[in-house]
Amino acid sequence: MAERLEEASNKQVILRDYVNGFPKESDFEVRTSKVRLNVAEGSKSVVVKNLYLSCDPYMRSRMRNLTGSYVPPFTPGSPITGNGVARVIDSGHPNFKKGDLVWGLTGWEEYSLLTEPETLFKIEHTDVPLSYYTGILGMPGLTAYAGFYEVGSPKEGEYVFISAASGAVGQLVGQFAKLKNCYVVGSAGSKEKVDLLKNKFGFDEAFNYKDEQDLDKALKRCFPDGIDIYFENVGGKMLDAVLLNMKLHGRIPVCGMISQYNLEETEGVHNLFCLITQRIRMEGFLVFDYYPMYPKYLDMVLPLIREGKIKYVEDIADGLENAPKALIGLFSGRNIGKQVVLVARE
Amino acid sequence: MAERLEEASNKQVILRDYVNGFPKESDFEVRTSKVRLNVAEGSKSVVVKNLYLSCDPYMRSRMRNLTGSYVPPFTPGSPITGNGVARVIDSGHPNFKKGDLVWGLTGWEEYSLLTEPETLFKIEHTDVPLSYYTGILGMPGLTAYAGFYEVGSPKEGEYVFISAASGAVGQLVGQFAKLKNCYVVGSAGSKEKVDLLKNKFGFDEAFNYKDEQDLDKALKRCFPDGIDIYFENVGGKMLDAVLLNMKLHGRIPVCGMISQYNLEETEGVHNLFCLITQRIRMEGFLVFDYYPMYPKYLDMVLPLIREGKIKYVEDIADGLENAPKALIGLFSGRNIGKQVVLVARE
Repeated sequence: MAERLEEASNKQVILRDYVNGFPKESDFEVRTSKVRLNVAEGSKSVVVKNLYLSCDPYMRSRMRNLTGSYVPPFTPGSPITGNGVARVIDSGHPNFKKGDLVWGLTGWEEYSLLTEPETLFKIEHTDVPLSYYTGILGMPGLTAYAGFYEVGSPKEGEYVFISAASGAVGQLVGQFAKLKNCYVVGSAGSKEKVDLLKNKFGFDEAFNYKDEQDLDKALKRCFPDGIDIYFENVGGKMLDAVLLNMKLHGRIPVCGMISQYNLEETEGVHNLFCLITQRIRMEGFLVFDYYPMYPKYLDMVLPLIREGKIKYVEDIADGLENAPKALIGLFSGRNIGKQVVLVARE
Repeated sequence: MAERLEEASNKQVILRDYVNGFPKESDFEVRTSKVRLNVAEGSKSVVVKNLYLSCDPYMRSRMRNLTGSYVPPFTPGSPITGNGVARVIDSGHPNFKKGDLVWGLTGWEEYSLLTEPETLFKIEHTDVPLSYYTGILGMPGLTAYAGFYEVGSPKEGEYVFISAASGAVGQLVGQFAKLKNCYVVGSAGSKEKVDLLKNKFGFDEAFNYKDEQDLDKALKRCFPDGIDIYFENVGGKMLDAVLLNMKLHGRIPVCGMISQYNLEETEGVHNLFCLITQRIRMEGFLVFDYYPMYPKYLDMVLPLIREGKIKYVEDIADGLENAPKALIGLFSGRNIGKQVVLVARE
């Protein structure tokens, strides 16, 4: 009976208000409140202890007061939410019991009461780092898999270009493409990231887009015969340059457009006529549509991780105090690899 | 033997030089030269008498000195070329004999020596107007068919929007969509065209884009629940407005972008992020890839024409002297329906 009253202090990351332009650390506040650590009698909720939180570019759209989008906006004054890895500490839901490890939508706080536990995935494989379930074994991993294989329709030996290539999704797409014997080039925003692409992830070529006066020329240098698949993460000028360099019947899976997320007015894209001349298929996708493929994806990727055939780089920020800085760092490219926040070591 | 020396005067439409901005009548010259009306001994060419010529928006790209595109530029100082209907008057090719009616690439002149007759289609059905082989029974017809059925992947009852809807391709796409029980709305550039869409072609709704202050609002008025298929003929601002109004998993077959063809710098398209949120497939296509489907298309469309289930409106300019005006009229929307040039009544 004592357990029913158990409370703890709960550090939380709060969005102060909706954000225009580039988000700043001061748009967030880290504060501490109290939380009840057990679920109410008869409730089907669970209470979890958060271990890792995922910083994802799509979260920028939730910092706007934009209803009707595919994800609802954050609530100013409340802790933000996102994907994370957590341990169940109390459960009123038949699918979950105390001690279970899960990943899915949780709060940016030490403990969360989750009222829709049906949306959580139970973690069955713990011989790999738990943080991987925020990335390669979670939403970004499935994003890379669905976007490349399902939307990109790759064929052996094709020419593949990936922007934001060292990020959580890009690094995986590049390696999936290499496993398909494609010629793979990535762009990123620093020498360190370019080195990572070439030396760690096995890309055939990579360039720092900030060093290129002319993106069209950079692409022509890397792809003298053109691009079959452009895995689109950034939008804007890069997309315009890529459109000039696509091969006949090329495909552009559109995963994100991070270069545009903080602009009051987005850059215009001018070269869409190339869609006609080159018969290009450009297709946007959201990972949510592909969750039914998750078990199949795990079956594919877990052995590749265990055998060292896929490399995976994370950038782990330590502690909720550092979470706002980690999150906003995505938009200046501060992170090297998948950005994660470590909330608690067990 | 006398026939081997037969010559005739040959009126021709010449492009003076490559064109910047909107083409003008003075960019063309109509002049008369001589032509030999029989093919040389041993040649596999044919000589044809041109009856109808087709004015098509894609021809604008051939007025630029732009090599490497999907069609080569016109040669200044020479007659321009395009699709037309013609009668064979001499043939060195085993597939064609004197008297055959054909459609395909020919010159803008009274008589043409065609050195690649393999590319011509023989006209087998003459119970329909011959001019139709420049449109509904030719390249624009197959364009509408392939773009709507193959690229658009329509389902019964879907919501379809067509820009430049009274043109050669648009009027057919709209009627194909009605045959598929879709809800069909078209945009066009005059009251007369809007009336045609609603009263002749059976569109459910239509609007004059020039009368709309806000295209987004016009689309929301016509499609309160959004658009499943946007058949894209114009690009630019219309595309940007449509992107804000697409339904989940919508499709945008990209057939043309006529609003952009005469601009020195194209308008930027700003709302491509909607491709992601709505999981839209946007796909460019060229009719050339679908020519193998032409017999199948004829089998479908000929009965529809004969039974009056498809209406077809042409705007026929009389004589090669009026051909330049007819061609450039496409870009100001002067034509009502498919623009054709009548070269000769037989």
